[in-house]
Amino acid sequence: MPDQTVLTARTGTAILLSTGERLRIINTTGGQVVDTWALTAADPSEHMSMQHTRAMLTKLVPAAGDSLYSNRRRAVLKLAEDTSPGVHDTLIAACDPERYEQLGAPPGHASCADNFRKAIAPHGISYDAVPSPLNLFMNIPWTAAGALEFAPSPAQQGDYVTLEALTDVIVVLSACPQDIVVINAQGPADVALEKLAVSG
Amino acid sequence: MPDQTVLTARTGTAILLSTGERLRIINTTGGQVVDTWALTAADPSEHMSMQHTRAMLTKLVPAAGDSLYSNRRRAVLKLAEDTSPGVHDTLIAACDPERYEQLGAPPGHASCADNFRKAIAPHGISYDAVPSPLNLFMNIPWTAAGALEFAPSPAQQGDYVTLEALTDVIVVLSACPQDIVVINAQGPADVALEKLAVSG
Repeated sequence: MPDQTVLTARTGTAILLSTGERLRIINTTGGQVVDTWALTAADPSEHMSMQHTRAMLTKLVPAAGDSLYSNRRRAVLKLAEDTSPGVHDTLIAACDPERYEQLGAPPGHASCADNFRKAIAPHGISYDAVPSPLNLFMNIPWTAAGALEFAPSPAQQGDYVTLEALTDVIVVLSACPQDIVVINAQGPADVALEKLAVSG
Repeated sequence: MPDQTVLTARTGTAILLSTGERLRIINTTGGQVVDTWALTAADPSEHMSMQHTRAMLTKLVPAAGDSLYSNRRRAVLKLAEDTSPGVHDTLIAACDPERYEQLGAPPGHASCADNFRKAIAPHGISYDAVPSPLNLFMNIPWTAAGALEFAPSPAQQGDYVTLEALTDVIVVLSACPQDIVVINAQGPADVALEKLAVSG
């Protein structure tokens, strides 16, 4: 069994995946949202883009077997496996310092946007605007009239998603620190990660 | 009556609106999609952001009276008036050269992404990644299961939307040149624009 590492609650990380390598993201406690980005290693200004992925899939939410597309309309990741209820979000921006200020949190609250910036900085990468993330396990139901709601994640203890690299990519993950709006069903929690070798 | 200018089919433009000024975007022929962006004049890296607007409004599509938010979660525009059926899109990326290549168009097909870049260049602004636009009059219906569809715009001849600047902004518009996927119900057409003085 591959070694697991722990992504500590409220923090982020960046992981290089070579083409064909897979990363399993395990919802250790259940109920934890994981904001997810991918930047191509060859040119980190090319990034997984939710607005392009929705257009390419003609879906609001990708499912197991679907590719995930970049801002240059290339398939960069595959959502290879999903043992969760399949509830993920592509609609909502990463939480950021402005969000927590508006929610009345004291200054310095951790955020997925800051976690993204901190995780890519050691790779010599910076982004003015944080791309819209794939929010794994996040529950944003929609109605026929287009109303959205922030709801608790239905992911169960041990549920996982496996991402497969379709090109060399830097995957950036943030164990969402949201503790005011109840999207993390158990409060912010650790997430386990397993890097899997090329299959076959 | 204020002077109208014509935004020629398949082209883009950038218009400075001071706080309180309004811009009316008139669907002259009906059925024409207009990709819309806003950059704040004080710092053009701050831009209207669909992922932040959906989160702030908890809606898929803004309606008359709603504010539109930036990537710093500030209200930068208001959708002040809307005489159309209210069908607009926040989900789909601007069409771009890669999109037309994948659709089999010959090289050099106009795109909303290129129109955005060309319109902001004379203002000394550039963007690596084109922000996700507010696609006025664009019809992307969703189902309960999250399936999306590219459908013809239901906007009627003469329908208009009025945007009001809540801060000094550069509004960028592209009369969408899509002529392969049938979203522009009459084919790419001209759009009329009216800049209105501060009301009251």
